[in-house]
Amino acid sequence: MKKNSWLFGGLAVLILGLGLIIGYGFKPSVPATSAVVKSIPNGALDPAVWGKYYPDQYASYLTNSEMTQGNSKYGGSAKFDRLERDPMLKILFGGYGFGIDYTKPRGHSFSIEDVLETTRKKPSASCWTCKGPQVPGLIAEMGDSYYTASFDSLKDKMTYSISCADCHDPETMALTITRPALIDGLKALGKDPESLTRQEMRSAVCGQCHVSYYFEPETNKVVFPWENGLKVEQMLKHENDEKFSDWIMPNTKTPMAKIRHPEYEMFSSSVHAANGVSCADCHMPYVKEGQSKISSHHWESPLNSISQSCQTCHKQSEEFLKDQVVDRQDKVFATQMLAEKAIVSAIEVLTKATNDPKADQKLLDEARQLHRDANYRWDFVASENSTGFHNPTEALRVLGEAIDLGHQAAQKATQAMNAVQ
Amino acid sequence: MKKNSWLFGGLAVLILGLGLIIGYGFKPSVPATSAVVKSIPNGALDPAVWGKYYPDQYASYLTNSEMTQGNSKYGGSAKFDRLERDPMLKILFGGYGFGIDYTKPRGHSFSIEDVLETTRKKPSASCWTCKGPQVPGLIAEMGDSYYTASFDSLKDKMTYSISCADCHDPETMALTITRPALIDGLKALGKDPESLTRQEMRSAVCGQCHVSYYFEPETNKVVFPWENGLKVEQMLKHENDEKFSDWIMPNTKTPMAKIRHPEYEMFSSSVHAANGVSCADCHMPYVKEGQSKISSHHWESPLNSISQSCQTCHKQSEEFLKDQVVDRQDKVFATQMLAEKAIVSAIEVLTKATNDPKADQKLLDEARQLHRDANYRWDFVASENSTGFHNPTEALRVLGEAIDLGHQAAQKATQAMNAVQ
Repeated sequence: MKKNSWLFGGLAVLILGLGLIIGYGFKPSVPATSAVVKSIPNGALDPAVWGKYYPDQYASYLTNSEMTQGNSKYGGSAKFDRLERDPMLKILFGGYGFGIDYTKPRGHSFSIEDVLETTRKKPSASCWTCKGPQVPGLIAEMGDSYYTASFDSLKDKMTYSISCADCHDPETMALTITRPALIDGLKALGKDPESLTRQEMRSAVCGQCHVSYYFEPETNKVVFPWENGLKVEQMLKHENDEKFSDWIMPNTKTPMAKIRHPEYEMFSSSVHAANGVSCADCHMPYVKEGQSKISSHHWESPLNSISQSCQTCHKQSEEFLKDQVVDRQDKVFATQMLAEKAIVSAIEVLTKATNDPKADQKLLDEARQLHRDANYRWDFVASENSTGFHNPTEALRVLGEAIDLGHQAAQKATQAMNAVQ
Repeated sequence: MKKNSWLFGGLAVLILGLGLIIGYGFKPSVPATSAVVKSIPNGALDPAVWGKYYPDQYASYLTNSEMTQGNSKYGGSAKFDRLERDPMLKILFGGYGFGIDYTKPRGHSFSIEDVLETTRKKPSASCWTCKGPQVPGLIAEMGDSYYTASFDSLKDKMTYSISCADCHDPETMALTITRPALIDGLKALGKDPESLTRQEMRSAVCGQCHVSYYFEPETNKVVFPWENGLKVEQMLKHENDEKFSDWIMPNTKTPMAKIRHPEYEMFSSSVHAANGVSCADCHMPYVKEGQSKISSHHWESPLNSISQSCQTCHKQSEEFLKDQVVDRQDKVFATQMLAEKAIVSAIEVLTKATNDPKADQKLLDEARQLHRDANYRWDFVASENSTGFHNPTEALRVLGEAIDLGHQAAQKATQAMNAVQ
C-alpha cells in the first residue's frame, strides 16, 4: 500500500500541475510544425501544387474565396465602397486616387483581381509587391529595376494571388520573410530579421504586407517608415524629415502622406502583443480540417471563430467577448468620425485661405502642416483593419490628437486670413 | 487492484478539476464573512469600539493614516496641491472654489480634517454627508433639515472620520448602504437597492461617496444625476434638463456644472465590471493580518498590492502589470492635457466675446453650452481618481469629445464676434 500511496501522490501532483498549466496559461498552445515535412518541388509557386502535399491546409486556404461581412460590425472580408459608406473620405483624400476609388479589397485569394480592378493609379511595378508569390523571384531577378518597371509590364507574370510561398519555405515549411521591405524595416528598428522567434515570425510574415509603406521618390522602392519606431508620431517624423508626400491636395496645397493598413504597427504596442500573442494566434486558430488539426488558412475576423480564436485564453462566453470587441470598436468609430469632421472643416477653411491672395503664407504653411499631421493620425486608425480593436487605447489616443490637430489647422488657417485684415 | 484503479481515476479527475478551477477562474475567490459574527453595541460609531471586536480589520484600518504617493505615477494617497501641479485648473475652474483650493484630499482617516481645512465654501451641512459615520443618524433625526442646516452647526457632532459604521451593519456585519443619496440613485437607475448581490454590495458601499453628486437647489439635498444612466452624456443630460449649474464663470458667463470623483460611474462600464469584479476585489484584497486572513481595510492604489490585487486573476509579473496600468494612464493623461488646453483656449475667446457688446448673443450662448459640455466631459476624467485606469477606453472616448467640443466652443465664440462685423 505504501508504494501505491507514493504513486497516488506523484500522479496527483502531475495532474494538478497539468490542470494548472492548462488553466493559468494565457498563451495559446502552439503545436509544433507537422512532424512529417514534405519538400515542395523547387520553385513551385502554384498553391495547387503545394496543395497536393498539404491538402488540409490547401482546403482551408481555398475557403478564402468565400468573402462575407461575417460577424463583423464595421469590417468583414466582403468588398464594399468606402466612399459610398462615408462620403467625407472624398474630401479627406481630395485630389488623390483614394478619393475616387477606395473599394475595400477582399482577401488574399483576390489580390490580383482587386489590384487590377481598382481605378487608382499604379505608378510602377511596386504595386505588385504584396500581390503574389512571384514577386520575390522577380525582385531577385530584376534587382532594383523591378521597382521602376511599369505595373503593366509585369502583369502577365503575376498569375497566383497571395498564397503558400509568400510565407513558407518550400523545403522546410518554416515561416520565412520573402519581402525585402520588411527585412529593411526590421533592421531600421534595430531588430535582426534572422533571429526572430517562431512566435515573432507568426506576426512577421503578416507584417510583410499588413503595414504602412510608401514608394521612395525616384527609386520607387517600397519603404516602411520605421526608423524612429512603430508609433504613428514616429512614422510621421520619418516622413516629415524626408519631406515625403504622396500627393498635394489641390484645393489646400497641403503636401499629404497616406497611411496604409498599419495592422502590424498598431498591434505591436497592444496588450495582446505584450502578452506574446501573434497575428496567427487569433487569425489562424487551430481547427480540425479533414483528418488533422491545422492552423486555419482562412484569414478573416476572429469574430467568426471566437471559440478557437479568443476562448483559448478568454474563458467568458462568445457573446460576452463579442460585446467587448464591439464596445471598443463603437468607441473608436465614434471618435474617428469626430476626427473626420474636424479635418473636413479644416480643409474648408484651408481652401478659403489658399484662395485668399492676402493670407499670411507662413501661417498658412503652418496650418497645412497641422492638416497633414492630423490626417496622418486619423488615417492611422481609419485605414487600419480592425476599427481600433488591435489596440483600442492607442487608437483612441491617436484620434484625440487628430481631433485636436484638425481644429488647430482650421484655427491657424483662419489666423492666416485675419493676419492681413 | 481494480478498486485502486477506480480510486486513482476518481482522484485524478478531482485534482485535475481543482487545478482547472484555480487556473481558469478569473473571479477572485471571496471568502465568506468571518464565521463568528460579533455584534457591536447598538449605536456604537467609534471605530475604536468596533476595533475591540475586530482587531485585525481595525489594525488594517489604522494604517490609513500612512498616506504616501506609493507606486502611483499620477495619484497616490498623499495630499498635494492640484492647482500648483497644473495651473490650467485655475482657469478651468475660474470663479469657483476649486479654482482657489483644489488640494487632493487624503484617505478616509482624514475626512474630517481635510474638509475643515479646505478654503472652499461649504454651503450647508450637506458637505458633511460623506465625512463620517454620524451622518446617517443625523439625517434620520433631522430629516430634510439636515441638508439645509449650516455646515458649522454640525461640526461638533462629527467626531469620527469615515469608518466601520459607514459600510457595515453593527449587528450582522453585513455590508449596508447608509447614505440615502445612493438609495435614490439606484432607484433612479431602475435598480432595487434591497436586492443587490454581495458582489454588487462590494462596490455599492464605495458608490455611496465615490460618485458625482450635486446639491439640489433650495433643498440642498445630495443628488446623484443618474436618472438617464451612468455615462457622462447621460449625467450631463440630467443636469442640462434641470438647468443646474454649480457656478457661473465670471469672465465667460457660462453656467458650469462640476463633476465630482465619479469612480463608481466610470468603473461601471469597464471590462473589470463586466467580468463581475468589484471595487473591493482590487482595493481591499485579502491579506494576512495578525492571525487571520481579512480583506484589507487600507484603501489605496492597487499598484501598492499588485500581488494580492491583480495577480489573483492576472498571472503576468508585477512589473508587466504595472507597466500596463501606467501605459493606459500615460495615454489618458496626455489626452486630458489636450482637452484642458482646448478648453482654456475656448475660455480665452469666450471672455473676449463676452466683453464684446456687439457679439451675437444667440451664438454666444451656444458657445457657452459647448464650453459647459466640454468641461463636464473633461472633468469626468480629470476628477476621477484613477487617471482613466478604471475604464481607459471610456476615458479616452470622453476626452476625444471634450477636445472636439472645446474647440467648437472657441469657434462658435469667434463666430459670435464676427457675425456683427
